[in-house]
Amino acid sequence: MTISPTLQFTLRRHQDEIQEALHQAVRGAQNSALASGAGDLSSYYGLIRYHLGWVDANFKPTTGNPGKLLRPTLLLLAYEAAGAWGLATSAPHYLQRALPAAAAIELTHNFSLIHDDIQDGDAERRHRPTLWKLCGVPQAINAGDGLFAVARLALWGVLEAGVESTLAARLGALLDQACVVLSEGQYLDISFEEGQNISVSRYVDMIGRKTAALMGCAAEMGASLGTRDRPTIERLRSFGYAMGVAFQVRDDLLGVWASTAELGKTPAGDVFRRKKSLPVLHALEHAHMADQQFLSAVYTQETPVTEQQVNEVLSIFVRTRTRDYCRTFLVEQCRLAQEALANVPRIDNAAAARALDDMQSLVFFVEEAARAGA
Amino acid sequence: MTISPTLQFTLRRHQDEIQEALHQAVRGAQNSALASGAGDLSSYYGLIRYHLGWVDANFKPTTGNPGKLLRPTLLLLAYEAAGAWGLATSAPHYLQRALPAAAAIELTHNFSLIHDDIQDGDAERRHRPTLWKLCGVPQAINAGDGLFAVARLALWGVLEAGVESTLAARLGALLDQACVVLSEGQYLDISFEEGQNISVSRYVDMIGRKTAALMGCAAEMGASLGTRDRPTIERLRSFGYAMGVAFQVRDDLLGVWASTAELGKTPAGDVFRRKKSLPVLHALEHAHMADQQFLSAVYTQETPVTEQQVNEVLSIFVRTRTRDYCRTFLVEQCRLAQEALANVPRIDNAAAARALDDMQSLVFFVEEAARAGA
Repeated sequence: MTISPTLQFTLRRHQDEIQEALHQAVRGAQNSALASGAGDLSSYYGLIRYHLGWVDANFKPTTGNPGKLLRPTLLLLAYEAAGAWGLATSAPHYLQRALPAAAAIELTHNFSLIHDDIQDGDAERRHRPTLWKLCGVPQAINAGDGLFAVARLALWGVLEAGVESTLAARLGALLDQACVVLSEGQYLDISFEEGQNISVSRYVDMIGRKTAALMGCAAEMGASLGTRDRPTIERLRSFGYAMGVAFQVRDDLLGVWASTAELGKTPAGDVFRRKKSLPVLHALEHAHMADQQFLSAVYTQETPVTEQQVNEVLSIFVRTRTRDYCRTFLVEQCRLAQEALANVPRIDNAAAARALDDMQSLVFFVEEAARAGA
Repeated sequence: MTISPTLQFTLRRHQDEIQEALHQAVRGAQNSALASGAGDLSSYYGLIRYHLGWVDANFKPTTGNPGKLLRPTLLLLAYEAAGAWGLATSAPHYLQRALPAAAAIELTHNFSLIHDDIQDGDAERRHRPTLWKLCGVPQAINAGDGLFAVARLALWGVLEAGVESTLAARLGALLDQACVVLSEGQYLDISFEEGQNISVSRYVDMIGRKTAALMGCAAEMGASLGTRDRPTIERLRSFGYAMGVAFQVRDDLLGVWASTAELGKTPAGDVFRRKKSLPVLHALEHAHMADQQFLSAVYTQETPVTEQQVNEVLSIFVRTRTRDYCRTFLVEQCRLAQEALANVPRIDNAAAARALDDMQSLVFFVEEAARAGA
């Protein structure tokens, strides 16, 4: 996604600390391998570093696109908004308490991307060969598994940062629960690509599991590190979850109606790819019989879709008022996110106020896709 | 492996409790999916149950081979041997404290088997199609990921069983560390299958990571649930680790020299399959130049190995005294395991004494392969 200058600023605020925590997590795992006498695991950790965008295919350092770090940023913002456990947020190291959890969330997300790329057969990610293209499927499956374990190991850094073990164990359970739900969502997503008659409600359930659960978990982990107040934690979790759904629906909207090059999308790209995203599922539910049959035929035919067919699909979307539906859906998710934020108690703390502002601007950014040309 | 009656008895003692804990773990994950409103995840959990041997390909209950449950049994024996936290081991429910960890270790092992089968392209496991053969590679990768997460989630059952959170978090970290090491071992194993010049010491390092680390972890987790005494925990961990190496070397021995049908191995099967196991790696290091060249040629040729070549390889193993080497190696691992056991302090507790006896009989069982016809 292309992001606005304001949002870039929001996402950049804690980027250096997050990057350092990520490096530390991978270094930590590799160092204990070295300590136990293994000489030749540098290529293995090279694969993990490659996927994370830190080295090139020859394992030489590179300054590539590190990704948006959206999930760990959300975790840290929720931590600040919830009060950062009463730590003086002017102190230079108040983030330390939450950074191991931020690293764990980002590495978990990245493990799932490695396996996603294999499952979807995608050859490129961020303009580079995907990991399985570089090292083959067997090693890529395994590197994903390893990164999953490194993510979990990173989380226990909270104990060294002074987090009490009751909370640390609770964070572990939250992350595990989110990963179970993530795999449920992935199961549904893969099934849907082969199946027929996917209802809008099943689709929304799927993206809740595949995308929103980990965002909700990130916000809940951050909030739990920041306060013991259950309602505050619950509201921030709801915020993260709603934003997860909203980000996905925004992608779905732009996948069909992005019209300008700067959005980084091909117009109607998702129709050309016949992605079973929200627009077509809505249209299938609301089109007249003939249009329904046309859609079903186009989305299952053996041959590639023609430009004429794409235009006809877009006309059906007009008849079913599908774009309005998707926009309304997105706006509603943003309203839920706003409502959750509005109910977070304001505390007398500059970092908390700034974090809430940042979360507001995240909502505005996502909502824009429902209002602008897109 | 085929197991002796005594060992079967040892492995069967806690089998019902372990099976119930495994079912409970999977049920728990599925129930929270149901509670969150997903209607159609029963096929997803069906895939996981199929792999665990509980249902057939139509997801109908079956009474298949549930596997040996070696790792969770080891965990429970270490728990008992270490003192079972002073609980009265005559009480019916003293195992409850350790069963969630036992389930976590067995499910972790099973997640790795799902991914192993994909990585090796194996079509059968325990006389049934492997999971990827049943549902395709994408869904099987994902079911493995899900089972990994379910395993982690199962562990937190220790909190409900009254384990204090400091220890629970420590168990989580132990399991994570073992999983990182497991993935390192798997990386080396896959690399070795393609590589040349694998030394015996690199191979031993690899099996330590791929097989022994999780066995050591199982024993350490069980012992940590049973006592706070560090030396006892450390000795039981060493026992588990040595047994892990020993089990693998036993497999390697039987893979070449098993001569009878009841051992469940084809004679010289590992030579036919050109598995780079301990025997051939030892022979490569100790053979004369001509024999070395012959071995290298046979193990890299495009065409399948002939029976004549297998016989020649076996003759080389005779010249390099490879069988003696492997037997001595196995006996040494068993000695290390015995030594660790001997140093576990005896406590006045019938279950602890019985557990130590059981562990002794595990060692005898494994060591047999170095003495008998095999």
